[in-house]
Amino acid sequence: MTADFILALDFGGTKHAAALLRHGDQSWCDVRRRLSPATPDATYDIETMLALARALVKGRRVAAVGVSFGGPVDFERGVVRLSHHVPGWEQFPLAARLTQALGAPVVVDNDANVAALGEHVYGAGQGARHLLFITVSTGVGGGWILNGEPWRGAEGMAGEIGHTVVVPEGPLCLCGKRGCVERLASGPYMARDARDILERDPARGGILRALVAGDLTRIDGSVLSQAAARGDPVASGMLRRGAQALGTGIGNAANLVNPERVILGGGVTHAGVRWWEDVRAATVATLLPEVHVELLPAALGDEAPLWGAIALAQHHLDGAL
Amino acid sequence: MTADFILALDFGGTKHAAALLRHGDQSWCDVRRRLSPATPDATYDIETMLALARALVKGRRVAAVGVSFGGPVDFERGVVRLSHHVPGWEQFPLAARLTQALGAPVVVDNDANVAALGEHVYGAGQGARHLLFITVSTGVGGGWILNGEPWRGAEGMAGEIGHTVVVPEGPLCLCGKRGCVERLASGPYMARDARDILERDPARGGILRALVAGDLTRIDGSVLSQAAARGDPVASGMLRRGAQALGTGIGNAANLVNPERVILGGGVTHAGVRWWEDVRAATVATLLPEVHVELLPAALGDEAPLWGAIALAQHHLDGAL
Repeated sequence: MTADFILALDFGGTKHAAALLRHGDQSWCDVRRRLSPATPDATYDIETMLALARALVKGRRVAAVGVSFGGPVDFERGVVRLSHHVPGWEQFPLAARLTQALGAPVVVDNDANVAALGEHVYGAGQGARHLLFITVSTGVGGGWILNGEPWRGAEGMAGEIGHTVVVPEGPLCLCGKRGCVERLASGPYMARDARDILERDPARGGILRALVAGDLTRIDGSVLSQAAARGDPVASGMLRRGAQALGTGIGNAANLVNPERVILGGGVTHAGVRWWEDVRAATVATLLPEVHVELLPAALGDEAPLWGAIALAQHHLDGAL
Repeated sequence: MTADFILALDFGGTKHAAALLRHGDQSWCDVRRRLSPATPDATYDIETMLALARALVKGRRVAAVGVSFGGPVDFERGVVRLSHHVPGWEQFPLAARLTQALGAPVVVDNDANVAALGEHVYGAGQGARHLLFITVSTGVGGGWILNGEPWRGAEGMAGEIGHTVVVPEGPLCLCGKRGCVERLASGPYMARDARDILERDPARGGILRALVAGDLTRIDGSVLSQAAARGDPVASGMLRRGAQALGTGIGNAANLVNPERVILGGGVTHAGVRWWEDVRAATVATLLPEVHVELLPAALGDEAPLWGAIALAQHHLDGAL
């Protein structure tokens, strides 16, 4: 067994990654990444991933494959329910397809659950038996570890903190609801709302405008953070509103489930110290006095799904799932 | 073992109850209840409960005692953290005190967790492995069953749906937050807000006024339900606002944890068909399309904590806790 390898595959919305680990090691033998084309589909995604995998494996014996997928997954059956970004994934039997192609047992789960497991086993979640991992990026997703194991819920959908409502009269989200956490705290939505303010009022957001040389379509979450750091009130206000919504959502989740720790990852968490302070303040304001929770930044960055996929495959080999 | 008895004790905010069950039976040998005095304290509560227990037991052999307590409990240590209604309970070692007095092993948990277990084993939660029980009464509390076991969280505080925030600009709750579910959906708060409207505007709430013969201090949750059933717009509006807040909270909890079933008990759930429809509609409006949850009325009424206490003691005897 010790000579065997574990393969980790990460099907992302805009990029794919594959990594190979020698069983028991703490660092990759090799990692390969590939950006998705402008109009991807499921068949393309799978062929790309298999090419990455075969280039990594080079005929070595793979004991198990862990897979992170960027969308809802039926974990028990290893079937992708759909992708919100890429067509062709509807009810796709990904575990079966990959088992056939790679000749090893395959375990598939959605990216938030897998990243939560990665942070739990290898990252900022070490030592916490009960935690919520939240990614605040192009969307806001989450995954639970309860009693040291992924908690997926009755339909594999647990962890959807991004679509909990915190401002019922708030702006409309693509999900059809108003004022859910994702609508207020995710990068693209904050950028869009800032852009709207600048388009309506030419006197506002001078620092923000200068950063994109007047091309408002270039405003994204990262530009917002830079503008806020330089003192732009529109950018600061937008990040503050997002941090408050997220903190309220975290406080609500902690009152409901009482985890020890909440770990925040994703691009928006690099928005600066002030953003973290605002998230923390809103969380504490929402917690009951008897409820406590530690708020920590993720440790594994973009590699959390790959490390989680390793842990998933490892659990499978250990018979723990 | 089959000749032994199990004792269930329910320390409520305003009343105490004790029940005796023959091991393996599905109905009580005997139940005793006692209302609390106007100014109770912990010592009085315990002496009252022990008197009820001794009158029930009459020298029979008790194999185990399950206890429901109306306030936060450190389950592992069997220690009451505090009561929000009765002084003297701060850090009280209730399990140890009762073990000494009754000569049997004692398991203590808070009333929402115990009621959730009662509904799970004997009531509307039968057949569901993952559920949230919510009591909507003088307060709004909740308890989880996950994988068929009570889920208490890292500090025994899980289930506090009443203090999740759903309207951040809403009215101020005693907990210090605005617009939490309890502030909008519990009986006394709805009654208070209706009373405020009637005091401010003598033209409104005619049906409600008639029901209490003009004495607005007599408006409570039950009177609101009656007035709404007779078509009073103030009462209907207040119940609708409460149902919407509760449904939003339930939808948020289901998106976060993905239970199979949510069970609603407590006085406010008798407010009528319209209230249930409103709760259901707000829940569905908040759920992600991929998330489903069954909403059911509690089956055990006031006896849920007693039946849950039996299940708790039973689990202890079976070594399952």
